Amino acid sequence: MSLMPSWVESANAPDHPFPLNNLPCGVFSTETLDPRCGVAIGDMILDLARAEAEGLVEVGAGPLFDVPFWNELFEEGPEVWAALRARLTALLARGAPERDRVEPLLVPQAGAEMHMPFLVAEYTDFYAGRHHATNVGTMFRGAENALPPNWLHIPIGYNGRASSVVVSGTPVRRPWGQLKGPEDTAPRFAPSRRFDLELEMGAVVGQASEGPVTVAEADEMIFGYVLLNDWSARDIQAWEYQPLGPFQAKATATTIGPWIVTRAALEPFRVPAPEREVPLLPHLADAGPMLYDIELSVTLAPEGEAATEIARTNYREMYYSSAQQLAHHTTSGCPMTPGDLLGSGTVSGPEKHQRGSLLELSWGGKEPVTLDTGEARSFLEDGDTVTLHAAARGDGYTIGFGPCAGQLLPALEDPYKR
Amino acid sequence: MSLMPSWVESANAPDHPFPLNNLPCGVFSTETLDPRCGVAIGDMILDLARAEAEGLVEVGAGPLFDVPFWNELFEEGPEVWAALRARLTALLARGAPERDRVEPLLVPQAGAEMHMPFLVAEYTDFYAGRHHATNVGTMFRGAENALPPNWLHIPIGYNGRASSVVVSGTPVRRPWGQLKGPEDTAPRFAPSRRFDLELEMGAVVGQASEGPVTVAEADEMIFGYVLLNDWSARDIQAWEYQPLGPFQAKATATTIGPWIVTRAALEPFRVPAPEREVPLLPHLADAGPMLYDIELSVTLAPEGEAATEIARTNYREMYYSSAQQLAHHTTSGCPMTPGDLLGSGTVSGPEKHQRGSLLELSWGGKEPVTLDTGEARSFLEDGDTVTLHAAARGDGYTIGFGPCAGQLLPALEDPYKR
Repeated sequence: MSLMPSWVESANAPDHPFPLNNLPCGVFSTETLDPRCGVAIGDMILDLARAEAEGLVEVGAGPLFDVPFWNELFEEGPEVWAALRARLTALLARGAPERDRVEPLLVPQAGAEMHMPFLVAEYTDFYAGRHHATNVGTMFRGAENALPPNWLHIPIGYNGRASSVVVSGTPVRRPWGQLKGPEDTAPRFAPSRRFDLELEMGAVVGQASEGPVTVAEADEMIFGYVLLNDWSARDIQAWEYQPLGPFQAKATATTIGPWIVTRAALEPFRVPAPEREVPLLPHLADAGPMLYDIELSVTLAPEGEAATEIARTNYREMYYSSAQQLAHHTTSGCPMTPGDLLGSGTVSGPEKHQRGSLLELSWGGKEPVTLDTGEARSFLEDGDTVTLHAAARGDGYTIGFGPCAGQLLPALEDPYKR
Repeated sequence: MSLMPSWVESANAPDHPFPLNNLPCGVFSTETLDPRCGVAIGDMILDLARAEAEGLVEVGAGPLFDVPFWNELFEEGPEVWAALRARLTALLARGAPERDRVEPLLVPQAGAEMHMPFLVAEYTDFYAGRHHATNVGTMFRGAENALPPNWLHIPIGYNGRASSVVVSGTPVRRPWGQLKGPEDTAPRFAPSRRFDLELEMGAVVGQASEGPVTVAEADEMIFGYVLLNDWSARDIQAWEYQPLGPFQAKATATTIGPWIVTRAALEPFRVPAPEREVPLLPHLADAGPMLYDIELSVTLAPEGEAATEIARTNYREMYYSSAQQLAHHTTSGCPMTPGDLLGSGTVSGPEKHQRGSLLELSWGGKEPVTLDTGEARSFLEDGDTVTLHAAARGDGYTIGFGPCAGQLLPALEDPYKR
């Protein structure tokens, strides 16, 4: 696959995140346009609500795009997803005869505000990166118990809180929580001191299921992927997570990127999962390459200062694919819903600078990370902005996700003061 | 509080579950009426969609009741909840001048089908019964680790799966899952053999929150309560639940009763929580009596046979109230949504016959329960129907919840066969 040229010339630069090959899905508004669906092309957004109203895009049982979420397209199913992609590719390709009608429907990204791209039905977060699980397990339970006995057999996950998912750019308030360190005799209620980021990819489920699905079927159910920062209060987590798992430690916010990169756009970047240490049972076995070669990085900028890249890794480091996670999610008959969001789990590589959380990067605070500004970070400080980046590199083009950013605000002085 | 007489005479019997004092909220349909909101009164249901259409009920920014869920009323807030209750009480009280206009809007419960009473926004399940936590902890982790160190300080909970919540009467399919017993060298994928019930109450959150709320504020946010059976696959749970908590073991189904009993109807039955072994931190401290004196029981009927009562307990046995659970749920800033459902955790009493799950009743299968039919049960068998019952006993009247029932269907022979 090589660059597909567009008459939107900015889209043709080899390192631009939004070439014609990409066409990611977002929800935008401007001073004059209410929030609605659009796709990114170069520096512009194509207003799909108007394109549909003018008859330039006619797919499924429309109108689908005059709403501030993509769920209505999800529910139309993969044939309509493909029809939309084909139509948009034709409209935006260099030489398209409809150019004169389409051009007035382009809105500069610079003047648009991005919103949540879809209504999150339910949110599940996994723990499917082996390096991350080993690192965290070592810190929480010791090296001999690092990887739980079930880890190599099932993608371990837990249900998260959909209401806490926010779009890139939304500030995140440092939470209060119940804390008790190993030396403390009793817990106290105080602002988290060990507030962290987690670099993840989120799979957006586009189709419903009613019973167990195979890994291949699960792959077909995935509409696309977003960047995902699973903010985590490590001190709340350490005290609360036994025996029923993370709860308030993960409920303050989860930030996703504004653009859903479709599975179709990522097809050229499929890679197989790492070699299996023990074979997976047949219902979870690999059904083809279902990870993706996507470069990921994290930058951290103290308030008013320049950003430092603190981690760089690749999505192919995951042990389980989103399709395997989704297949596992349905084994019990759990019904899946269009708009479900599955966090991959933190993506860490084998090297120290490839770790996707400050918990791992600073090894629980014992080895603080030094920023380019000279400041050190064990965990996040008030005012810090964390930004996730992702890019798949093709032959003369790039599939980008747009930045996924959030600034940490200081904790409320008194969380119960109205 | 004593019986409030109604002109619907069946409502006036002292042991009838639906006197005028109750007025629980459900969604019903008949052969001629689409699903809509109604309240139970005696053996009848008052069709609120028609009552509203005819101007007999005018509350909030209606119409609120011509939809198959109560969420629109939730969003109107407690003043409108109270106005509705006052209006319905006036319309249905003995001597009400509107009787002639109201009577044609009554539908016999015997001819109605009940549906999910509300759209479950998100579902959280707690673990807030001390006897249950001690019993299960002893079986899973040994007596010395039975109650986790955090248990007396925070209501331990985990996010469940809203899409799996079904209404009473919906059959439940025995799930497949990954199983590995302590003697097995490797896991296998097979139907659960240790499928269980859990007797719980569910609190229905009626109001949104954006930041932490106090226990008193949380109590005001609760619209009402339902019976809740948190079906649990113990063998799936034992293998999967470490380190991130229950996932597929609890995702097959959670059955709720068809009637939401309002907080207002339960006011006369408030009781304080048990004495605290260690004081709760101020943000979770008791802010008045927030448990309820509600008798609970479980019956089990093998297919085609009579039911046996296998457990009898009381909701006042809980250690944490739903208000405390909800307050804890918001500590991190987690936004709550109207329609959120909070499972109390299994309600077990101190005595053996007061245990709210087969896991506890049969002590992990070591002491099977004998049914009146002579059959023994360690866990559920295919065809078994489990029914939960609840009643608060007032002076000459009863506040009932209606039965919460589900029959267990056999596992699919091949879960991937289409």
